[in-house]
Amino acid sequence: MDSIDKLAEYFKEFPGIGERQAKRFVYFLMSRNSNYSENLSRLITDLKKEIAQCKECFRFFNLNKINHSLICELCSDPRRDDTTLLIVEKDSDLESVRKSRLYNGMYFVLGGLVPIIEKNTPSQVRLGELKEKIKGKNLKEIILAFSISPQGDHTDFYIRSQLKDICDPLNIKISSLGRGLSTGTEIEYSDNETIKNALKNRQ
Amino acid sequence: MDSIDKLAEYFKEFPGIGERQAKRFVYFLMSRNSNYSENLSRLITDLKKEIAQCKECFRFFNLNKINHSLICELCSDPRRDDTTLLIVEKDSDLESVRKSRLYNGMYFVLGGLVPIIEKNTPSQVRLGELKEKIKGKNLKEIILAFSISPQGDHTDFYIRSQLKDICDPLNIKISSLGRGLSTGTEIEYSDNETIKNALKNRQ
Amino acid sequence: MDSIDKLAEYFKEFPGIGERQAKRFVYFLMSRNSNYSENLSRLITDLKKEIAQCKECFRFFNLNKINHSLICELCSDPRRDDTTLLIVEKDSDLESVRKSRLYNGMYFVLGGLVPIIEKNTPSQVRLGELKEKIKGKNLKEIILAFSISPQGDHTDFYIRSQLKDICDPLNIKISSLGRGLSTGTEIEYSDNETIKNALKNRQ
Amino acid sequence: MDSIDKLAEYFKEFPGIGERQAKRFVYFLMSRNSNYSENLSRLITDLKKEIAQCKECFRFFNLNKINHSLICELCSDPRRDDTTLLIVEKDSDLESVRKSRLYNGMYFVLGGLVPIIEKNTPSQVRLGELKEKIKGKNLKEIILAFSISPQGDHTDFYIRSQLKDICDPLNIKISSLGRGLSTGTEIEYSDNETIKNALKNRQ
Repeated sequence: MDSIDKLAEYFKEFPGIGERQAKRFVYFLMSRNSNYSENLSRLITDLKKEIAQCKECFRFFNLNKINHSLICELCSDPRRDDTTLLIVEKDSDLESVRKSRLYNGMYFVLGGLVPIIEKNTPSQVRLGELKEKIKGKNLKEIILAFSISPQGDHTDFYIRSQLKDICDPLNIKISSLGRGLSTGTEIEYSDNETIKNALKNRQ
Repeated sequence: MDSIDKLAEYFKEFPGIGERQAKRFVYFLMSRNSNYSENLSRLITDLKKEIAQCKECFRFFNLNKINHSLICELCSDPRRDDTTLLIVEKDSDLESVRKSRLYNGMYFVLGGLVPIIEKNTPSQVRLGELKEKIKGKNLKEIILAFSISPQGDHTDFYIRSQLKDICDPLNIKISSLGRGLSTGTEIEYSDNETIKNALKNRQ
Repeated sequence: MDSIDKLAEYFKEFPGIGERQAKRFVYFLMSRNSNYSENLSRLITDLKKEIAQCKECFRFFNLNKINHSLICELCSDPRRDDTTLLIVEKDSDLESVRKSRLYNGMYFVLGGLVPIIEKNTPSQVRLGELKEKIKGKNLKEIILAFSISPQGDHTDFYIRSQLKDICDPLNIKISSLGRGLSTGTEIEYSDNETIKNALKNRQ
Repeated sequence: MDSIDKLAEYFKEFPGIGERQAKRFVYFLMSRNSNYSENLSRLITDLKKEIAQCKECFRFFNLNKINHSLICELCSDPRRDDTTLLIVEKDSDLESVRKSRLYNGMYFVLGGLVPIIEKNTPSQVRLGELKEKIKGKNLKEIILAFSISPQGDHTDFYIRSQLKDICDPLNIKISSLGRGLSTGTEIEYSDNETIKNALKNRQ
């Protein structure tokens, strides 16, 4: 396999990229000057050196040049409200909430959703780490922020049941993001679940 | 214009139907037997004879064979809670809420949304009829159930402002369907407005 | 079932129309005045009375008010070239070729494509009628104009094999529509078959 | 701007990639191990070292390890027919024709299409290089293989007019890829141009 095909194979692993677009990426790189390729190449290598996974919230973050702490800028920001913890599935969900500038508490990246069919405690999500974190903090509320899908709903249910014994004695409230009509929802095409929540949460 | 083209012109006025599909409808009718065409034709004529617009909620409904009342079966059902009134834009929105079987109050079909740009009280929605209806009833709550769009939001705002003077003295609460995450919402791709409501309405 | 649901059932049989859109058609009809419904209803009934299937080409056509001939205006037009016969699957294909104003010969509507899997001569296409028609005319060329799909290709192959014994002695040429790049074709995304034909038919 | 955002900026320049997907690519790279990133990074750098642009056809190709010729394996293959030259817009078009294994002549990558509105000879396509190539070779036919779009048609027209004075005295025929029905074409939905070509090129 030549270098064109080898590189296309790598691009094919990128999320949402098929064989054809992978090949187009390679042609695109060939058409750009060497400078572009070298910069891109260096940025990819540097990424792994310049980012770290936060030991508190498990999000990826840029390492501070001066202070090589392994705690991200959100977790180390004293102005943030450390009595609230919002739990998301993945980094991009966290970014979405963060960019809204509407939440000022702490975050925790679970690292995945809990599959519906598995019986044993799933090892692919950070349940142990989450429990540890809750115990050590002065929390008043945990907000579960998972996508509205069967797996997201199951994860919400599962995490609630797993955290109950820890949260109840500590008087930590567990809440979930509110449900109802979201931007673009048309009443005519809404499913019963959405209408149910929209009626229940009317205000 | 021949009868094929004339009929295609009529189908072109159907919601969501372009010239090409209108023509296909005509070819489809030609390919079916006369029986099908005659039945369809009769059903269309009968529709106007067998349905009426309810004098209470303004929805279209099938006339009762025995009692030719102009009040629909929802408005005349004594088991429904007549202290709550849900206001929708159009019949299909009402159907969607009704099918969810989660609401047992009364309905009112506004007949449209209020355009954002118009200055005068829009005549195309049934504001006068709505005001009359509210005065005569024993209402405790009015629920506004419009789609989540700029025009839907504007209609919500406009109707609230128009009903305030009537509802306040009568102690009628005005609410709107709850907003938040709806079925299928992915946190990653949510807009700020949806995240704001989801955080505010968490529970 | 009430008249609303009954009519929706009929619209659901229209090509490309699902349950939801069928219901919207009914709501649309209810919202229009009686005049509209009555006209539509009458046009549908009249369609069957005012159109006939041409005894020559089997297309549906509007009956002439004066001369109630069962031969359509294309087949009875003496200015059309009756030495060429273009065979299509269905009326809407014929309309598409006709609207291009690039063909001045005669037409024949086969009434369907020949399924690939069936063994026996399919009875759903007008093969017998086609053979009769060819024998009686003074044809020089038959043009097969089927869509480019496995079933279209099979129909092309099948009709050729069935007509060979009639056409060869009469010196009637059988041709098929040319293949190659069509409007919108991008070389990058073309399949081998299209490239093969485009290379072969280059000019 | 931190390294996450910087890398996302680079991915945003990839063909067909928006801001959101660019960011997802970065999260994807963070989630993979260092090995993956390093390999990808090295392949990108190596690409520019291991490929060259062929001095004959201007396509990008993998450099031969032994013979560091700047002529690609297609242009240096003595089994290919050097009396035919197929001109394409870009590398991926050439790949598409090549993969069909239906053409055994030579290629030339023009490097772009000729914009319709520009008055001056466009400098962004390799017209000078093409003219030089034609003069030095023993060609019998030039095949223009551009996409079927207004700009593709214009490029076909423009290149023909530019090459006429060179090709006529040398008796080199200029042809274009054949037009007609392509895979998936439905007669019903064909435009007039496609029907015209399909009728003209029937066989």
